[in-house]
Amino acid sequence: MRQSQLFTKTKKEVPAGEVAKNAQLLIKGGYVFKNMAGAYSFLPLGLKVIGKINKIIREEMDAIGGQEMVMASLQDSSLWEATDRWDDKNVDVWFKSELKAGGVVGLAWTHEEVITDLMRQFISSYKDLPQYPYQIQKKFRNEMRAKSGIMRTREFDMKDLYSFSATEEQHQEFYEKCAAAYMKIFNRLGIGHKTYKTFASGGAFSKFSHEFQTLAEAGEDVVYVNEEKGIALNEEVIDEVDLAEFGVAKDELVKMKSIEVGNIFSLGTKFSEALDLNFTDETGLSKPVIMGSYGIGPARAMGTVVDLLSDDKGIVWPEAIAPFNIHLVLLNSDDAETKDWADGFYTSLQANGIEVLYDDRDARAGEKFADSDLLGLPYRIVASKKTKAEGKFEVVTRATGEVRYLNESEIFADFDSNPET
Amino acid sequence: MRQSQLFTKTKKEVPAGEVAKNAQLLIKGGYVFKNMAGAYSFLPLGLKVIGKINKIIREEMDAIGGQEMVMASLQDSSLWEATDRWDDKNVDVWFKSELKAGGVVGLAWTHEEVITDLMRQFISSYKDLPQYPYQIQKKFRNEMRAKSGIMRTREFDMKDLYSFSATEEQHQEFYEKCAAAYMKIFNRLGIGHKTYKTFASGGAFSKFSHEFQTLAEAGEDVVYVNEEKGIALNEEVIDEVDLAEFGVAKDELVKMKSIEVGNIFSLGTKFSEALDLNFTDETGLSKPVIMGSYGIGPARAMGTVVDLLSDDKGIVWPEAIAPFNIHLVLLNSDDAETKDWADGFYTSLQANGIEVLYDDRDARAGEKFADSDLLGLPYRIVASKKTKAEGKFEVVTRATGEVRYLNESEIFADFDSNPET
Repeated sequence: MRQSQLFTKTKKEVPAGEVAKNAQLLIKGGYVFKNMAGAYSFLPLGLKVIGKINKIIREEMDAIGGQEMVMASLQDSSLWEATDRWDDKNVDVWFKSELKAGGVVGLAWTHEEVITDLMRQFISSYKDLPQYPYQIQKKFRNEMRAKSGIMRTREFDMKDLYSFSATEEQHQEFYEKCAAAYMKIFNRLGIGHKTYKTFASGGAFSKFSHEFQTLAEAGEDVVYVNEEKGIALNEEVIDEVDLAEFGVAKDELVKMKSIEVGNIFSLGTKFSEALDLNFTDETGLSKPVIMGSYGIGPARAMGTVVDLLSDDKGIVWPEAIAPFNIHLVLLNSDDAETKDWADGFYTSLQANGIEVLYDDRDARAGEKFADSDLLGLPYRIVASKKTKAEGKFEVVTRATGEVRYLNESEIFADFDSNPET
Repeated sequence: MRQSQLFTKTKKEVPAGEVAKNAQLLIKGGYVFKNMAGAYSFLPLGLKVIGKINKIIREEMDAIGGQEMVMASLQDSSLWEATDRWDDKNVDVWFKSELKAGGVVGLAWTHEEVITDLMRQFISSYKDLPQYPYQIQKKFRNEMRAKSGIMRTREFDMKDLYSFSATEEQHQEFYEKCAAAYMKIFNRLGIGHKTYKTFASGGAFSKFSHEFQTLAEAGEDVVYVNEEKGIALNEEVIDEVDLAEFGVAKDELVKMKSIEVGNIFSLGTKFSEALDLNFTDETGLSKPVIMGSYGIGPARAMGTVVDLLSDDKGIVWPEAIAPFNIHLVLLNSDDAETKDWADGFYTSLQANGIEVLYDDRDARAGEKFADSDLLGLPYRIVASKKTKAEGKFEVVTRATGEVRYLNESEIFADFDSNPET
C-alpha cells in the first residue's frame, strides 16, 4: 500500500490522560483512535494487525476441533436469572438499557448462558458430544475504570470457545489440548517466551483454573515465577497452596508484574444444570453436560506485544502480525528517475506477493525514518538516489538494528511471499 | 466438512412468532439461532454465508479506494449533541445505558458523527482528500418492532462507507462509482436481476438520495417500477416528482413490494460543519469537507437471497455465497465398502480445493434428501452402493433440478476449486 494514500498519519500528541505505553504508541502510529475512555477504533493498520492475530487464533482453534459462529450481544434477563448473574449486585459490569418495546436488555459481557441455551437445540445424546463452538465477538463490560490503554476497555473483541463433554475424561483431554493450543498462539504472536500458564483460583469445580500470564512491567497482575522450572502461580493462590506440590520453594519464586493474555476454566455442570442442558449416556441415563470456557482477547494480545517488544523509538512488530512485512522508504522523491525506479521496485515486490507499505510521500528523510521506527514494520528498505546508483539496498531489521546490503534478487530470495496468509 | 461433526442439526420447528420465511428456513437449516426478538446468532453454516457476503463487499469497496477500519460502539453524548442527534426526541432508536463511572453512553446506530470526529485527526488540506474509510461493524437500533426475520433486527452488522471530498465534482464522481459497485455486489450475490437503484427522498443536500431495492413479496417497502425502462421510484417520492423527468408516465409504473438492500446518501457539509471538519483548498481558503455515506447490511442481503431464491423444499444458495458448493450425500452408510469409497471421494474433493459438506451420517435416504434440499447447497452428489457399482454419480443442481450423471474425473473437471476465495 502507498503511504501517501493511507488516510491515517502519524501523530506527535496523544489525548490527555492516555498514559499506557501501548495506547500512546498505537495512537501516535495511527493504528488506533480513542473514542472515549475504554472505547477505541481500529484504523486500517491496526485492523490489519487484529486480522492477523484473529487468523492465528482461528487456525489453532480449528485445529483442535473448534467450530466458529457468532452470538448476539443483546440479552433479555431470563437465562441470566437462572444462573443468578443478571442482578447488578452479583455482576457489576452489565450495561443495561430500556427496550422501546418494553422491558430491559443487557449487553453480553460473556456468553456461557447464551451458548448453553443454544446448545440445548443440538445436544441430546452422548453421540452429540463433544462439541467446541467458538466465536470472535464483541463483549461489553461496564468497567468502573478503563485502564491500560487497549488492554482493559469497555468494549472489546474476545475469542471465547466453550467445550461440551460427556465425561470428565473427555473434558480433561480437551482442556489440555486447548492449553497447548494457547501456548502455540502466544508463541506465534511473538510473546511465548514471556508467557506462562499459571495456576489461578479455581472456583467451584476444580482446584485451580489456569491463566496465561505474560511477564511485563505494564501488567495489572502479579505472579510468582520460577523461570528455570517454568512454574508460575497467581498472587491470589500463593498463600493457599502447598508449594511442595509444585516442586518449588517460596524463595525460589520471583514476584513479577504480568498481563493476563488468556484463561481457561473448567465449568463443571454449573451452567448445564441451571439451564437444563442434559444428554443421554450409553446406558440411557440423563446427565448434565460438562462444560469449559476458554478466552483470549485479540486487542489485549496486540497491546501486550506493543508493551513488551517496543523500544524508545516505537513499535516492533513480530513478522507474524505486522500489518506489512516491509517498509519501503523512498528518499529523494523529488528526483523523477529515483521515484520511477522505486515505484517499479514497489510494483515488483507486490507482484511477488510480498506485503509492503511504500512511503512514497514527499517528506524529509529524518521524518520518514522517525515514522518508520514508530510504525515498527519488521524490515525497512531504503530506495534513494544512492541506492539506485549502487544497485544495493540498505535493509534494516527493526527488532535488532541489523543492517544488510542486498540487491533486488537477494531481496526477493530473502523475503517469502506473505508467510502468514 | 463432515456433517456428522457439525454441531448444528436441521430442525422441524421454529420459535413461536417467527413468521418471516427467511428466518424460518435459516432456523430450520441450523444457519441461525434466535436469541430474542431482533437478536440472532449466526451458527457455523450461517457465518460461512455471511463471511462470503462480506468478502464480496470488501472486494468491491477496496476496488473503488475504500480503506477498512472498525469504529467503537460506545458513544458519549458530545458529538451527537453537536448534530442534534442525541436527544431521544430526535432519534428514537438509541440504546442508552448508565456508565458505572458516571454519565450515560449510547450504542452507535450509525457512525457519521464518529467518523467525522475521527477524520479531523487526518484531514487538513485538499491534498488529504478524497478519502473513503469503511467498516463492517455492528449497529444497535432500539426498534419498536423487530420484524422480517433477520432483515430488521435490533443488532446487525452493517458495511458503512463514508466519503470525504474537497469538491462537489469529486463527491459526485465517487457517488456514481459507489452506486456502480453496489450493483456489482448485488449481481454477485445473485439478486441483481431483481434489484433497482431507486430514487428516494433526498434530505437537505440533494434532490434525491438513492436506495437499492430488491423486488420481493416479503419486502416492507413499496416501489413503483418500470422493469423495461429500468426505472424505479420509492413510494414516498412518487407524488412529489415530475415523472416526465424520468421519461415515464405513472400508468407505466407497477407498484411492487421490495426490500431495501442498500442506500447511498449525499450528506453535503451537514456533519463537517457541525463538527468542524475543514480543509484548506489550493488557494488557502478554509472549507468544510463534503461527505457521503453508503450502507449495506450483510444479514439483510442474506435474508433477501433466502426470501427471493428459496422454494417450497428449502433454501437455494447462489454459488458465490453458499456455505459449501457441493453437498456430498452418502447413502447405504451401513455398507463398509460404500462408506470407505465415499470417504475417499470426499478426501479427493477436499484435496482438489472443492468446498464440500459431506453428509456421512447414519440416516434414512429420505431424511438426508429433505435435509439437503433444506440446506440448499448448489450441487448435490449422491454416493451410494449403486453409484459405486456404476462408476457414475448423480449430480443434481439445486436451483434448476437438472440431473447429470458424471464420473469422478468429469466432476473434478466441472467444479472449480473454490471460486470465491
